[in-house]
Amino acid sequence: MVDIDLPVIAINFKTYPQATGEKAVLIAQSCERIAKEFDVSIVVAPQAPDLYRVSRAVDIPVFAQHMAPGDPGRFTGHVLGEALVESGCSGTLLNHSENRMQLADIEASIRKAEELHLYTIVCTNNPVVSVAAATMNPSAVAVEPPELIGTGISVSQAQPEIISGTVEQIRKVNEKTAILCGAGIGSGDDVESALKLGSQGVLLASAVAKADSPEEVLKDLIRPILK
Amino acid sequence: MVDIDLPVIAINFKTYPQATGEKAVLIAQSCERIAKEFDVSIVVAPQAPDLYRVSRAVDIPVFAQHMAPGDPGRFTGHVLGEALVESGCSGTLLNHSENRMQLADIEASIRKAEELHLYTIVCTNNPVVSVAAATMNPSAVAVEPPELIGTGISVSQAQPEIISGTVEQIRKVNEKTAILCGAGIGSGDDVESALKLGSQGVLLASAVAKADSPEEVLKDLIRPILK
Amino acid sequence: MVDIDLPVIAINFKTYPQATGEKAVLIAQSCERIAKEFDVSIVVAPQAPDLYRVSRAVDIPVFAQHMAPGDPGRFTGHVLGEALVESGCSGTLLNHSENRMQLADIEASIRKAEELHLYTIVCTNNPVVSVAAATMNPSAVAVEPPELIGTGISVSQAQPEIISGTVEQIRKVNEKTAILCGAGIGSGDDVESALKLGSQGVLLASAVAKADSPEEVLKDLIRPILK
Amino acid sequence: MVDIDLPVIAINFKTYPQATGEKAVLIAQSCERIAKEFDVSIVVAPQAPDLYRVSRAVDIPVFAQHMAPGDPGRFTGHVLGEALVESGCSGTLLNHSENRMQLADIEASIRKAEELHLYTIVCTNNPVVSVAAATMNPSAVAVEPPELIGTGISVSQAQPEIISGTVEQIRKVNEKTAILCGAGIGSGDDVESALKLGSQGVLLASAVAKADSPEEVLKDLIRPILK
Repeated sequence: MVDIDLPVIAINFKTYPQATGEKAVLIAQSCERIAKEFDVSIVVAPQAPDLYRVSRAVDIPVFAQHMAPGDPGRFTGHVLGEALVESGCSGTLLNHSENRMQLADIEASIRKAEELHLYTIVCTNNPVVSVAAATMNPSAVAVEPPELIGTGISVSQAQPEIISGTVEQIRKVNEKTAILCGAGIGSGDDVESALKLGSQGVLLASAVAKADSPEEVLKDLIRPILK
Repeated sequence: MVDIDLPVIAINFKTYPQATGEKAVLIAQSCERIAKEFDVSIVVAPQAPDLYRVSRAVDIPVFAQHMAPGDPGRFTGHVLGEALVESGCSGTLLNHSENRMQLADIEASIRKAEELHLYTIVCTNNPVVSVAAATMNPSAVAVEPPELIGTGISVSQAQPEIISGTVEQIRKVNEKTAILCGAGIGSGDDVESALKLGSQGVLLASAVAKADSPEEVLKDLIRPILK
Repeated sequence: MVDIDLPVIAINFKTYPQATGEKAVLIAQSCERIAKEFDVSIVVAPQAPDLYRVSRAVDIPVFAQHMAPGDPGRFTGHVLGEALVESGCSGTLLNHSENRMQLADIEASIRKAEELHLYTIVCTNNPVVSVAAATMNPSAVAVEPPELIGTGISVSQAQPEIISGTVEQIRKVNEKTAILCGAGIGSGDDVESALKLGSQGVLLASAVAKADSPEEVLKDLIRPILK
Repeated sequence: MVDIDLPVIAINFKTYPQATGEKAVLIAQSCERIAKEFDVSIVVAPQAPDLYRVSRAVDIPVFAQHMAPGDPGRFTGHVLGEALVESGCSGTLLNHSENRMQLADIEASIRKAEELHLYTIVCTNNPVVSVAAATMNPSAVAVEPPELIGTGISVSQAQPEIISGTVEQIRKVNEKTAILCGAGIGSGDDVESALKLGSQGVLLASAVAKADSPEEVLKDLIRPILK
């Protein structure tokens, strides 16, 4: 398994025009510069067609945004784990709110990722679903109340009990899975409250991927985790 | 719109291990050598994570295996047209039998591909569905009876009336859409009968993508279209 | 095939609380009273669990809101045509904007419905998709621009060119399929403009299914079609 | 919550022609006769269009085969909990292998069913997924290795460790959820081994729903649970 240092800041590039193609490489390089200069753990998740060019351009971990379950062979248009490995990926998001997966497929993808030594971050929408996901032993769970995604309202500040409750409930069944805090994260204050509530990192998208200056935003975000 | 010379041989790499990552590049280069040496039209369709590395390595058209409808922004894990363009793609398969799409999404993807000057090959399962697809003006329709896919039994030889009927019915409503013949194509004889039945090319997968020597298979396949 | 008199007013009960269970029976009985008193053609489409009790309570045609393709046997939780027949249905909506279907499944469902003598109304979102649907020979096509559904803004008045264009394009490829006008229909004026634009009826939902007095709304709706 | 006596025998009617429409009523009445004569707990799950006529005809619990998440309103063709209640249902299967659901939708359906006092049986494919399902507090989990469904090879006899392992793992996180054994159950011996392994019942389909004499099969099935 790829080892991701915690706390981690994971950046989902979604399909933002500002984070597609060569621009995905530029943002990833910004993330790499901040990660190296400040010795913090940053992961980037560009679109599938950009995985290879991004992973060749940077040394920080590159994640896919989705991975289909299944073994190589008769699938067309699906992104399987084997292709992620060949593209230099270290891991993948699973079950993002914009790409929900069937329960059995999440489990099958986690197992396949284990075999391939890929790190898995399973996105979830509330504490109960987070615990269910955690029992399947992904590398990490990222709690993202869907109603806050893209709002700029941070779950860690607006609904802290969702994070603290999730941490408490998950730890009863799983001591190892990392717990990330998603939805509305945009500032160092959001990250600080997320970590204080017991999470080991954050998953965010627009605040960095659509920023005029991603590096400025990142410098603010990492403030609470400077070593 | 990218112009694809007809007749065309389109190779779907699916998720075959023999056609993933660097091996996808090698097969694409074999296709390119045959295309150039014999001046024939060959298109390759590798997996999404391999599109960039393949399109940088060869000069023949590189297609995606699938393209989701929708405009850039809040999608995670979807492969949109804009990312295909940035990766050097010239077109995409749509609605493959292993990745069926909703009717409205097929139409939306065709329209988006037109805007982006991407060539579209819509896969269909019988003559009636082929006509429905053709009325939406994709660049091409590929008729593939699902029961023959991967069998090595060529639709052009086993069920010639499916091809001739499709050609006849489509031409009543659309004079321009190219008509390809899929499912079970493996030899020059299959290609020859497909062209005689009125199609303008073939879509195939395993015969080339899983071949010990793709170039030998390709040399046989192109025999009927040598100029 | 069940014969539905044209012009027709088709009422989709969706999952409105006001149109569920015994209340579905009451609304269907209101529709029946108006249909008989004024000798007009009205069709009702309640939820699957209500089909049997509604079809036993009224003599007007009862339609399902959806029908899955496939032959009886190993499916769980799908509503197949055979069960619709056993429940007294005369037809079904297909591909509603809230239940989009794959292209090949729409065609398979139309063919299965033909075998079972069920009437099919395929919902579509624009003129191009409507023509594609019409080439597959459903009993009817209902054009419903998704952005107008549930708005109370009638497509026949707000975007008349969508209806007239659809009628013109469909008639080039199919002379028989009935053409219905959906989205935002709420008054007799909306129905009148829909019929003047060349459609043979309307598909609507909330204006009747959520009405305090469905019969009053129906009396207004049928005004332009009184014989 | 409807209380279902344990051990329970749950019969999925799927879309078998032998268990559709009036024939669904006949099989349900056979189940009712055996349940009453021998004082055992039997549940029947007919297709959605048959729920009302079956629930009116018998006094044993009638379950749906599937329930979509979501509140009443703008859904077309979906079977929501409210309609199940109106049809006299006592519960529903969820996530059957022939109708897999997204993780978040399973949880939302369980919560909605709780509100409506409907019993939930979540189908799962292996021990890990069973534990994940159990943490979401459904009324019951039914473990069905997909490769055995419909084979006549009983999971309780062919792969006993799947049942005993599931029971052991689930009880670590949830003491209350009933655990059922599915896939290949066809005889009293299968039921006996299932109960000995720690399960509280069985979920089966073809052995009863396709039987020439369902009552004879049921008499054999209930042998190990006669009180």
